[in-house]
Amino acid sequence: MKPELQLISLLEPIRSEIEQVEHLLYETLARVEEPLQSMLCPLTDGGKRCRPALVILGGRMFAPFGSPFRILAAAVEMLHTATLIHDDLVDKADLRRGQKTLHTIWPVGATVLAGDYLLARSVSMIAGLEDCRLVKIFAETLCTLCAGEIREMCVTEGKHRSREEYYLSVEAKTASLFAAAMEMAGILAGAEEGHVATLGRYGRELGMAFQIVDDVLDFTGDEEKLGKPAGSDLRQGLVTLPTLCYLEQATDDVAVNAVLSGQWDEEHMRAAIEAVCSSGAIEASLAEARAHAMRAQEALAGLPDNASRGMLYSLAEFVVERGY
Amino acid sequence: MKPELQLISLLEPIRSEIEQVEHLLYETLARVEEPLQSMLCPLTDGGKRCRPALVILGGRMFAPFGSPFRILAAAVEMLHTATLIHDDLVDKADLRRGQKTLHTIWPVGATVLAGDYLLARSVSMIAGLEDCRLVKIFAETLCTLCAGEIREMCVTEGKHRSREEYYLSVEAKTASLFAAAMEMAGILAGAEEGHVATLGRYGRELGMAFQIVDDVLDFTGDEEKLGKPAGSDLRQGLVTLPTLCYLEQATDDVAVNAVLSGQWDEEHMRAAIEAVCSSGAIEASLAEARAHAMRAQEALAGLPDNASRGMLYSLAEFVVERGY
Repeated sequence: MKPELQLISLLEPIRSEIEQVEHLLYETLARVEEPLQSMLCPLTDGGKRCRPALVILGGRMFAPFGSPFRILAAAVEMLHTATLIHDDLVDKADLRRGQKTLHTIWPVGATVLAGDYLLARSVSMIAGLEDCRLVKIFAETLCTLCAGEIREMCVTEGKHRSREEYYLSVEAKTASLFAAAMEMAGILAGAEEGHVATLGRYGRELGMAFQIVDDVLDFTGDEEKLGKPAGSDLRQGLVTLPTLCYLEQATDDVAVNAVLSGQWDEEHMRAAIEAVCSSGAIEASLAEARAHAMRAQEALAGLPDNASRGMLYSLAEFVVERGY
Repeated sequence: MKPELQLISLLEPIRSEIEQVEHLLYETLARVEEPLQSMLCPLTDGGKRCRPALVILGGRMFAPFGSPFRILAAAVEMLHTATLIHDDLVDKADLRRGQKTLHTIWPVGATVLAGDYLLARSVSMIAGLEDCRLVKIFAETLCTLCAGEIREMCVTEGKHRSREEYYLSVEAKTASLFAAAMEMAGILAGAEEGHVATLGRYGRELGMAFQIVDDVLDFTGDEEKLGKPAGSDLRQGLVTLPTLCYLEQATDDVAVNAVLSGQWDEEHMRAAIEAVCSSGAIEASLAEARAHAMRAQEALAGLPDNASRGMLYSLAEFVVERGY
């Protein structure tokens, strides 16, 4: 089965809830004036809706699904989309999910403001839930996401980074929002503190696994399925786990070093991607992703045993098995 | 007396409070990692601190100044600075307060992320005040600011706009945050609802007056004092109140129409600025600003008569008398 279909079948029991979240996203968009409305299309242009699914599952574990969870899930997806809009601009990425990125269609200024508006709207939705703790977690996560992106921006252009720096970056740019989505869902559902912390732990480990696999797929994935060119991280000089693993074995690789020094042509790039892919680096990276997914699954043991927990368990499996 | 000195002397009774707010801004910045810390220098690089002063005065009218007001005032200034960083990027402005703007020194991406980080940090500070109503007002104001900037972006490049569109824009990009600063200060001070609404009305009218005068100074001001080239609004094709007033009398002005059509050279620009300045348009615009300032002063009549009210009264006077 294709990974998209696997995910859809895995999330089938909460399809109606995800649709309700999407409906709220559409509704929110419909109330926005043009041209902003057209600019915010990335919000409704697909995406896997992983983060809303986490909110739904984390919440459903402790309370019936209802309007507050819909709002929380939509706000989390809006925050995620806002950061994608700005990140694509920062990374000068031309494609996202196979679509042209916003800044390739609209002026830079409009792209910045569209992202800002989504950020603002997402905070406003969270504030409407009338729980300051949620706002604090949400705002802190936003700070972490920005600081993570800035850190990553500073290491691109061929500067090597240590594994530690890589993990910090993955934690900041992906795991933090996965963790926050789960924690906020638990808080909103009135879960006890121990359970809220456990949900957060699950989200963080899942997010780490998810991002590492994303970084692997950037090497091994099919361009069409990725919706962007292969090796796009390397192309921006960004060293991710597969490259780190590869360099630990082969520090003198000419093509990879050329790419990282910024002095490369397409032949170097193809050779570098090929070198990383045919080495043990991919398997080593996936082993790390699996270890995180397993820790996510272990965290679930501390939570009530119900259908949502089962789905979260399967989700951790899906995250590391998708796409190859 | 120079306008800066006038303002300093007007705000002398709350100098210690303003310094405490600035200290909090410095402290917040000191905890930020490099290179982000250096990028956030516009936060501590001067500025008139009008918005913090509004928070301090609005709060002091009903309660003693303390840590929550310091946090609110700092958060409002951070939000303001974040929007300036992004707006200067959107407007491609090279100078702000006589200093090079961030995007002329750092890459566009870094500038976007620096603004995002300040936004996030300001929301996080407001959330720490543990009052969801404050977060809601803050987030809604942020939405309004973004929507206002987007609207303004759409009318630049020579598209005329009506007075109504101009007022909506001023309301969104300036008056909304002035109003929110006052309202939030009142709420935090435990003021009764009628007083909170009155503070908001004062802030809104003051903000309208402030922005109209800013738009006048863009024509009449000294480049050195402005810290940016004269006619910078016209240069980006932005029609503000002086141009609107001028065009109502002289629709066939060659230079102004050339500028607005985007087909202009420096001679056209100088002639257009000169034409607007030597017409009744400046006086007509200032009369409008004065009317708003007067309405702000009238609103104060509904508030307790104390030293803070007196300073807010003088502030409305200062706003329309500054700089010419």
